[in-house]
Amino acid sequence: METESHNNPQERPTPSSNGRASREDNHLLIKAVKDEKIELVQQLLERGADVNFQEEWGWSPLHNAVQVGREDIVDLLLSHGADPCLRKKNGATPFIIAGIVGDVKLLKLLLPKVADVNECDVNGFTAFMEAAVYGQVEALRFLYNNGAEVNLHRKTVEDQERIKKGGATALMDAAEGGHVEVVEILLHEMGADVNARDNRGRNALVYALLNSDVEKVKAIIRLLLDCKVDVNVRGEGRKTPLILAVEKKSLDLVQMLLEQTAIEINDTDSEGKTALLLAVELKLKKIAQLLCLKGASTKCGDLVTIAKRNYDSDLAKFLRQHGAVEDVRPPDKAWKPQSSRWGEALKHLRRISRPMIGKLKIFIDKDYKIADTSEGGIYLGFYEEQEVAVKRFSEGSTRGQNEVSCLQSNRANSHVVTFYGSERDGGCLYVCLALCEHTLEKHLADRRGEAVQNKEDEFARNVLSSLFKAVEELHLSGYTHQDLQPQNILIDSKNAACLADFDESIKGTGDPQEIKRDLEERKKFQGISSVCMAPTPLQTTASLWALGLLVLYVVNKGNICFEMLKDLRTEELVERSPDKETEDLIQHLLVPGDNVKGHLSGLLAHPFFWSWKSRYRTLRDVGNESDIKVQNTDGKILQLLQPETSELPTSFSQWTNEVDESVMKKMNAFYEKRKQNKTYQNKTYQNKTYQNTVGDLLRFIRNLGEHIDEQKNTKMKSKIGEPSQYFQEKFPDLVMYVYKKLQNTEFAKHFPKISTRTKPTCDGIGGGEQAGQP
Amino acid sequence: METESHNNPQERPTPSSNGRASREDNHLLIKAVKDEKIELVQQLLERGADVNFQEEWGWSPLHNAVQVGREDIVDLLLSHGADPCLRKKNGATPFIIAGIVGDVKLLKLLLPKVADVNECDVNGFTAFMEAAVYGQVEALRFLYNNGAEVNLHRKTVEDQERIKKGGATALMDAAEGGHVEVVEILLHEMGADVNARDNRGRNALVYALLNSDVEKVKAIIRLLLDCKVDVNVRGEGRKTPLILAVEKKSLDLVQMLLEQTAIEINDTDSEGKTALLLAVELKLKKIAQLLCLKGASTKCGDLVTIAKRNYDSDLAKFLRQHGAVEDVRPPDKAWKPQSSRWGEALKHLRRISRPMIGKLKIFIDKDYKIADTSEGGIYLGFYEEQEVAVKRFSEGSTRGQNEVSCLQSNRANSHVVTFYGSERDGGCLYVCLALCEHTLEKHLADRRGEAVQNKEDEFARNVLSSLFKAVEELHLSGYTHQDLQPQNILIDSKNAACLADFDESIKGTGDPQEIKRDLEERKKFQGISSVCMAPTPLQTTASLWALGLLVLYVVNKGNICFEMLKDLRTEELVERSPDKETEDLIQHLLVPGDNVKGHLSGLLAHPFFWSWKSRYRTLRDVGNESDIKVQNTDGKILQLLQPETSELPTSFSQWTNEVDESVMKKMNAFYEKRKQNKTYQNKTYQNKTYQNTVGDLLRFIRNLGEHIDEQKNTKMKSKIGEPSQYFQEKFPDLVMYVYKKLQNTEFAKHFPKISTRTKPTCDGIGGGEQAGQP
Repeated sequence: METESHNNPQERPTPSSNGRASREDNHLLIKAVKDEKIELVQQLLERGADVNFQEEWGWSPLHNAVQVGREDIVDLLLSHGADPCLRKKNGATPFIIAGIVGDVKLLKLLLPKVADVNECDVNGFTAFMEAAVYGQVEALRFLYNNGAEVNLHRKTVEDQERIKKGGATALMDAAEGGHVEVVEILLHEMGADVNARDNRGRNALVYALLNSDVEKVKAIIRLLLDCKVDVNVRGEGRKTPLILAVEKKSLDLVQMLLEQTAIEINDTDSEGKTALLLAVELKLKKIAQLLCLKGASTKCGDLVTIAKRNYDSDLAKFLRQHGAVEDVRPPDKAWKPQSSRWGEALKHLRRISRPMIGKLKIFIDKDYKIADTSEGGIYLGFYEEQEVAVKRFSEGSTRGQNEVSCLQSNRANSHVVTFYGSERDGGCLYVCLALCEHTLEKHLADRRGEAVQNKEDEFARNVLSSLFKAVEELHLSGYTHQDLQPQNILIDSKNAACLADFDESIKGTGDPQEIKRDLEERKKFQGISSVCMAPTPLQTTASLWALGLLVLYVVNKGNICFEMLKDLRTEELVERSPDKETEDLIQHLLVPGDNVKGHLSGLLAHPFFWSWKSRYRTLRDVGNESDIKVQNTDGKILQLLQPETSELPTSFSQWTNEVDESVMKKMNAFYEKRKQNKTYQNKTYQNKTYQNTVGDLLRFIRNLGEHIDEQKNTKMKSKIGEPSQYFQEKFPDLVMYVYKKLQNTEFAKHFPKISTRTKPTCDGIGGGEQAGQP
Repeated sequence: METESHNNPQERPTPSSNGRASREDNHLLIKAVKDEKIELVQQLLERGADVNFQEEWGWSPLHNAVQVGREDIVDLLLSHGADPCLRKKNGATPFIIAGIVGDVKLLKLLLPKVADVNECDVNGFTAFMEAAVYGQVEALRFLYNNGAEVNLHRKTVEDQERIKKGGATALMDAAEGGHVEVVEILLHEMGADVNARDNRGRNALVYALLNSDVEKVKAIIRLLLDCKVDVNVRGEGRKTPLILAVEKKSLDLVQMLLEQTAIEINDTDSEGKTALLLAVELKLKKIAQLLCLKGASTKCGDLVTIAKRNYDSDLAKFLRQHGAVEDVRPPDKAWKPQSSRWGEALKHLRRISRPMIGKLKIFIDKDYKIADTSEGGIYLGFYEEQEVAVKRFSEGSTRGQNEVSCLQSNRANSHVVTFYGSERDGGCLYVCLALCEHTLEKHLADRRGEAVQNKEDEFARNVLSSLFKAVEELHLSGYTHQDLQPQNILIDSKNAACLADFDESIKGTGDPQEIKRDLEERKKFQGISSVCMAPTPLQTTASLWALGLLVLYVVNKGNICFEMLKDLRTEELVERSPDKETEDLIQHLLVPGDNVKGHLSGLLAHPFFWSWKSRYRTLRDVGNESDIKVQNTDGKILQLLQPETSELPTSFSQWTNEVDESVMKKMNAFYEKRKQNKTYQNKTYQNKTYQNTVGDLLRFIRNLGEHIDEQKNTKMKSKIGEPSQYFQEKFPDLVMYVYKKLQNTEFAKHFPKISTRTKPTCDGIGGGEQAGQP
């Protein structure tokens, strides 16, 4: 087959009007070199392309010419002033690249032009080392004959040396590369130091064992052993050459090493395992037997049990004959599970022996099962030795992909179940999550008896607040959950709620951030205006609907079946609200209107999320407004609080008849007294007893709040009890009434500040909280 | 070497007095079987040990006797009534185990006693399959001759089938196990279906390629190909047999498969890679060339660039000759970085090609460097395609171990930097963390100009609140940070703070939870009382000290050098507090007293963390106490607020002279009027103008707060401004004075509720918050 030689018109330089090379020409020059089109190179150079132009990673035309091995192009470039000392971003010169490609002609050409045959890149690689890495025998010989230092150790940058990178020699490179001939030449012709060590203390023997081709490894190790290489060095994980040979499952290699008198047969790796223990674990009967016969100790690990677990009775017997005893692992008394619900099973799972799946210890057995799922179930496990819940999927499962993708993108969302990591093995995907105690459904079911009617429900408020934050942040990351329901909300051992189960989640285009980006892109490039670009995304609306059902479910303490709620119409759902705050909140969720973006964080400032104490405080603070105190009906606030004629009747339209009579009398007595008092006689507004208006009710609440704890009012206090509860129960629609009239006005300053962020930030107002209104 | 035959006295049964077997005897029976001590077995059975006793995993004496392959013991047990149908926990009967050990004599003995030669365990394994798994040729033949079904597919439990586990046949087992002879017998003598598929659709060919011994794989694949096995099936990751052969780096295997006319040479795996692309990536020149010559498409992936990156110019040329073109990867326009500070570098890193280190993409280059460390530096990276900061350590480094261990144990701590995961490669440990914008030090330095004196510093309060929570929860998990300083506190793009850098952390015995557990254990087992068990741990005290310095550093907006603070004595530090709240807080930190447990969560309720508005609200609420309003000096609260004679002078001892004169006059006017009013003349206490007492100051603040926003007081309002600020500045020691006098009294109910949890829980008081006092 021939080299393609189509004539792309772009590749023919057109004379530029001013005779100066354009930046484009420089790129064309490099492309021409890569494509080995020497004539084009010549043309571009002649019309002024920069012969020393360097592309992104520092590649110059000369570097490229050397890489493609074209002596003629190299010559041409040099004759046009190419700098042979230019360095790529990693510090490599054309000469070093010539070592890689192993082209002796190029090396000869460049050698007179370099300052030092041992010049190196930032990682310390010389041309000689590169020739060893790539097994370039001729280049190696040429460089050696021209003064290359054979036993040079790589000198790298400080950052790398601090973590013990660097220090390797050409011999190690050749050994790792499996280049038998190079190793032989280095050892026998060039006087390479067989026992040179890199900065980690590893010698060529350890490097040789990194190669995956066992035959090459054997040949190189033979050469190294013949030159008396030290066999008691350590590789990664403090593994000895003997251990590495066992891991390669090569009886020959193990045999070769065991023939060395100096070998320390019982050295252990960083996990405390000997070569024998590894051989037994890896079911390598012959290697294990050989090690035993060569005197390996049988005291490391429970060898007999491991062999029996693998049903190798022969090996088990052999090991016993060599002194191994069956061990019973003592339970780890110091360890205590964090989960109380799963504690016993976790203790058991921790004790038993299981093959690790990456960082995960798991046993698919009903004793360790947490729950059923539509796919592979949820099981207890240990991920990096931390107790976790493991959700299992089939490898190619779309559900599994959804779950992992969503969790990976939401690690920082503190209201989403903490994601530990995932593992794949045997066609299974294992998703490891923080272990929680119960689902919301189970939690509520367990507490069914405890529920007390007409009490403030802090649990509901906190669960839903977490949930709203979780969903809001999920939406910001571009994901929609799509399966919000009580089984997918978890309650942990500290009674905090988090959102879980993302296997039906999707990354949608409805994401507000993406829409915004899209918008910006479009504006930039196409001049389209942004006005009609943010449609109500269907997914967001569906999420809000599901949240509406969840609000109802939670405030009803799980006593309404969630599945049943799904079948109800909006009006039927709204009817099931136990109070006005819930009613209004779910109306916002079920009928969100057009602007769903940011809807959730806004709703976190809804009175539903105010504690009863905060609600009471708000009413008092509003009642303390000057115009309310002086009954200035022309004042803005009283105007705002005016009921519309079309409005439904409220519980407080005749409020003076609703409040305890003796309290009413006592509170009015203050004004009665004043009436008889000369000082106040001209100030009519301060003399009015309480009337049936909202303003007066707020004034009443403010005044009562200020004075109810005074000693003279103990009788009043005994009638009212806790005022925050009294007013909540007596006038259950008052807070919502005031909220609706005053939201989006200056008087919203009296509303409590509620954090609408999932994590506290350092620029909020007052204790990391910030105000927000829907 | 001979079998050990020491006579442990424990192994000799001593006659039990009542003749009944103890539970201990049952365990001894199983041990005797394992140890193959037939006489002891006989003795134990005779004195009544339960012949059908099952240990933890369901192993009975008979199961064990079969495992060790002792026909005589099996006989003995059967004659004593051993049930041959007993199942282990995984459902295996002694007969199935006989298939594993491959003992034909045992199979013969047990066969008449089993209901079905094809009986299987819970995973669907029959004795025949087990014989295939373990390569037991004779057992296989015996079972076949006695009616074992050759082509039975494994039937497993529903949970497993849902994720497509199960369905494999004996042929697949033998192929995976590398048992060439078994495969041959199954195919040629027993009529095994060569194209049977398991529940994932894999046939014996895919199973054969799972074995690591290439020679065995070749032999088995030869047999399978001769029997016309389907070569276009898929394994894990949708890999074809051809792709799996390339991954095995075996030219022979690839050749064998390419000889099949039906082969689909261009099929891709789940990542869209063809066999050719993988061969080029794996630097397998010969295999790549063979694939090309057999007609593989060169259109998948940027083959030329990959070959060039590996410096294989020959292969690059060869590929071009076969139609491969050099591709330039277009930048991913849709992707936008989350970090603004690191955005450009991230875009670049995302675009370039890098070998993956597990789930991590990283390039150790100064362009992607975030910071220096004492070990391997911090670099930008992508972990599971999410932008991260990667801290690098040398593999065996203690610092690295500390960092990972602490992060693994604190994944749920939302004030600790989010931990993504770690990878190990080439002697390096890579710790991947959420990417933040700045360290606290840098953040403060960047804002140096912006700092305004005498203003409420919400940033400081929020950073320190996060930090306290982080450290408190860290301590609860048993860890101590040991290097708390401004470089180790990070500020993210949302301006939230988190704690980082755990490479000096230790898991100490000073952990309160551990002490508590210890305590409980000791009480349970040794009857030791708990009184003197909780010493002040040195580490906790050191952490508190460091937090004290950090408080000073942050409230001084980083204008004091942290290193300098380290050298100061307690008094010198205390002097540097800009206000009384800070002074008291750091005194608690620097001189924590004996009880350091829970100290931090207590301190989160300290007035330092109250917003100025909350402080003002607290003063007003205290001032609204009945006894203060009526100036009842005998009342408990005024008694509590009384200054001690030894106390230092306060800013408010002559407060009536400090407050703006016109305001004072106006406020006093109320009482002057009353004096002239007959109604109040007998109520002396209500007629008093304000005196220089704390009680009167609080009454003043309460009254001013209630009325300052009234229209008649606009002039007063213009003098005072924002009252919360006015009183904070006028009487900077007032809040702390009131706090100290009233903490641990009933009046602490007026203090603000501050969340002391790191995550909101669902059982707190009022909006997920809960009260706490140091």
